[in-house]
Amino acid sequence: MKIHNRGLLIVISGPSGVGKGTVRKALFERADHDLIYSISMTTRAPRNGETNGVEYHFVSKEEFVRQINNGNLLEYAEFCDNYYGTPLDKVQEQLDKGNEVVLEIEVQGAMQVKEKMPDAVYVFIAPPSMKALEERLKNRGTECQELINKRLNKARSEIQMAAEYGYIVVNDTVENAADKIMAIIRAEHARTIRVLDQYQKLMEE
Amino acid sequence: MKIHNRGLLIVISGPSGVGKGTVRKALFERADHDLIYSISMTTRAPRNGETNGVEYHFVSKEEFVRQINNGNLLEYAEFCDNYYGTPLDKVQEQLDKGNEVVLEIEVQGAMQVKEKMPDAVYVFIAPPSMKALEERLKNRGTECQELINKRLNKARSEIQMAAEYGYIVVNDTVENAADKIMAIIRAEHARTIRVLDQYQKLMEE
Repeated sequence: MKIHNRGLLIVISGPSGVGKGTVRKALFERADHDLIYSISMTTRAPRNGETNGVEYHFVSKEEFVRQINNGNLLEYAEFCDNYYGTPLDKVQEQLDKGNEVVLEIEVQGAMQVKEKMPDAVYVFIAPPSMKALEERLKNRGTECQELINKRLNKARSEIQMAAEYGYIVVNDTVENAADKIMAIIRAEHARTIRVLDQYQKLMEE
Repeated sequence: MKIHNRGLLIVISGPSGVGKGTVRKALFERADHDLIYSISMTTRAPRNGETNGVEYHFVSKEEFVRQINNGNLLEYAEFCDNYYGTPLDKVQEQLDKGNEVVLEIEVQGAMQVKEKMPDAVYVFIAPPSMKALEERLKNRGTECQELINKRLNKARSEIQMAAEYGYIVVNDTVENAADKIMAIIRAEHARTIRVLDQYQKLMEE
């Protein structure tokens, strides 16, 4: 018996360098999931081989701004003169079908989403320590110490935002973090605040 | 890295006949758990082969009443002139060691526990339908229709109490219900309200 038909919106976020992309990919590589990755919308031009609706929903700047004004952006940001964001209508469509929709976004974006969808599941991916985060940023090998320091400072302030999330998942190992997120999704589907109405109706039948 | 050292108290409850005992046993038969079953205290005499501290903590009526008055009973009830209950000190001792303590108790007892330990994890085991519950009570085969009806009426009012729990787990199959409880325990350990303080301390190191 299924007492929930609607999917959950799962927001995976955390400081830059924490490895949230790796955790999200590990999650999607599992056989036992039922997750949909939310495709972002952007105003940047498609690169060779990119298909509209696959890597991104590609739209014009006018269209993006129109959708911002319509309230259809769950979150958005500007980067290198282009907009990037999450279109609400596409997310809702998947949730209505009963799919779990996963957003993997920066802390600032997650806070925008939370204002519009406070009932979503907010998971903060956290480094095991500040030292571990610094190591990770260094091991990328592509950045100078000044940039690393800048990102560490940003990470420090982003870590303060963990309080705004429903869950804190320490990325000690990627598999462990992915396991925990799967458990969180499963548990959230059983939360009384999500299922009580449907359950009581079922019992009255 | 472990950011929680204290165990969780998990209260498994639900209407009579729902199969909460079977679910709890299935949970304990798993290899991958770290759960301790809370041993009740009773004033009834030990039966042949029963050992103090194994099946029950056996105490005198005077001792039980003294512990009630001391506030050491998380919950208790009287049945056939004997007291049965859950001693708080034994539960705390296990939680302090980092063990997860599982109580499997009636709805009324669970509500007593909730007054004393609102932060515990409250799981309501629910029947897939009232019809399924009636079948289960009938299939026990030992009870007359009048008693079945009485228990069904009690179950109906107990089902109203589901709202007081954190989670509703439908006992469609025992393994499925046990899986969900394992996921709930895992997810609860990552809840921000439980780990934020420790996590922030860790980040300051």
